[in-house]
Amino acid sequence: MYISETKIRVRYGETDQMGYLYYGNYAQYYEVGRTDAFRSLGVSYRELEATGIMMPVVELQVQYFRPAYYDDLITVRTTIKEMPTGSKIIFHSALFNEAEKLLNKGISTLVFYNNQEKKKVTIPHQIEQCLAPYFFTQQESK
Amino acid sequence: MYISETKIRVRYGETDQMGYLYYGNYAQYYEVGRTDAFRSLGVSYRELEATGIMMPVVELQVQYFRPAYYDDLITVRTTIKEMPTGSKIIFHSALFNEAEKLLNKGISTLVFYNNQEKKKVTIPHQIEQCLAPYFFTQQESK
Amino acid sequence: MYISETKIRVRYGETDQMGYLYYGNYAQYYEVGRTDAFRSLGVSYRELEATGIMMPVVELQVQYFRPAYYDDLITVRTTIKEMPTGSKIIFHSALFNEAEKLLNKGISTLVFYNNQEKKKVTIPHQIEQCLAPYFFTQQESK
Amino acid sequence: MYISETKIRVRYGETDQMGYLYYGNYAQYYEVGRTDAFRSLGVSYRELEATGIMMPVVELQVQYFRPAYYDDLITVRTTIKEMPTGSKIIFHSALFNEAEKLLNKGISTLVFYNNQEKKKVTIPHQIEQCLAPYFFTQQESK
Repeated sequence: MYISETKIRVRYGETDQMGYLYYGNYAQYYEVGRTDAFRSLGVSYRELEATGIMMPVVELQVQYFRPAYYDDLITVRTTIKEMPTGSKIIFHSALFNEAEKLLNKGISTLVFYNNQEKKKVTIPHQIEQCLAPYFFTQQESK
Repeated sequence: MYISETKIRVRYGETDQMGYLYYGNYAQYYEVGRTDAFRSLGVSYRELEATGIMMPVVELQVQYFRPAYYDDLITVRTTIKEMPTGSKIIFHSALFNEAEKLLNKGISTLVFYNNQEKKKVTIPHQIEQCLAPYFFTQQESK
Repeated sequence: MYISETKIRVRYGETDQMGYLYYGNYAQYYEVGRTDAFRSLGVSYRELEATGIMMPVVELQVQYFRPAYYDDLITVRTTIKEMPTGSKIIFHSALFNEAEKLLNKGISTLVFYNNQEKKKVTIPHQIEQCLAPYFFTQQESK
Repeated sequence: MYISETKIRVRYGETDQMGYLYYGNYAQYYEVGRTDAFRSLGVSYRELEATGIMMPVVELQVQYFRPAYYDDLITVRTTIKEMPTGSKIIFHSALFNEAEKLLNKGISTLVFYNNQEKKKVTIPHQIEQCLAPYFFTQQESK
């Protein structure tokens, strides 16, 4: 399992007239969390894309428990629970406010996609290697 | 069953560097579809909110099949498949491009929420009455 | 002078907690107006960009007179006041609500930019030809 | 003169298909910079608004010099150059990339607005007091 945390402060422009962080903006918070999860693994999503591998989202599930408000400092906890196999990778996102209340949970499924060949590809070796220690260490020690 | 259709043209600012409609922007397309579905039923969501009833989203599921591109004229088909009971209402959204290809499907669950009393309420009578003909006509005629 | 009009309905997600169309979202309304102005001239901005000519914005001025609210049907009037010479083109945008009150005015300056050569270029001949009748007819008839 | 700096990393969803930070998103970066400028002065914009004083933007000017790209860590330098008098306050924003190149400059003019009385008001005493040391210290010492 790999866990990473990111802080995001809710911007005024991200609220709606209900006074809540607009429900559509959580997807962007997950994206920031995913990029940071990769960064702390030693993978630059920017550089990955420069090599022709993109990671479009194919599925998203969101549950809204409590609203986030303007200027709240949100903790986005991003978890990769399973070692990706094949072309898919699943990120679990959980958002907490400063009182450590769970506001929102999301699951996003992305695929590795070769933009030149216009087809899905298996997880790049570099990412696999960065992730492996978080999943296989215990098994290897058996 | 109640079905409504809305046209939305993809804005430049809604694309991302992949050249796709950004995955987080679909939620806003669903919102426009829901507002229009209510409008064509004779319900103004704006007026509803002015009476103190808000409709926050509590759950969202999205499946991305094909990308939408800048300047595509998207058809958002919004369907209410079941007569809401209790405080929840479920909207099914399906997005099609001009070639009538299915791009994206989403399910959003909203609740009726009394903002003064800070609690969920059952579906307002006015909305129930507007929706009823689409669900109960056949049963009534038995 | 060339004038074009576009209707945009304010989305819930575009409001902020003040209940106003967020001040940063007007730029997107101008963009939609510019694209439509080009479309009604017979120029597809999408196709232009596919030929390698992009039109980045180099300057923007905005004056906010009255707020726009959720669900308002806004008229965006886009005006090209002068025939572009060189690599610049200036669009004047004015937004009106349903009561025909002026809400907002903006001026955006864009350049024609060759993305392969990474340099500014003069206005493409096709656009010049589409615009010319709106500027030079009177002079020619003299 | 009062100067404050904020770091913002460009999100994927903030880019457009040109691969640039979308021109309309700079306004939100300025907003984050203004909120942080107030915060470091000891003024919470959130609390100010809770007292009924809002600060709508009445004018915005933006100059775009160089694009910002996905994942760039941008420095937003926010400067209040003059002590506000009357109901207006002017913020100067300048954005720099990691190579310290100037990307973008903006000037936003906001007013203090009493939301209950629906009218402009002069700068609240609290904010005036927080700002005063940055403008009048030298004069007072004469």
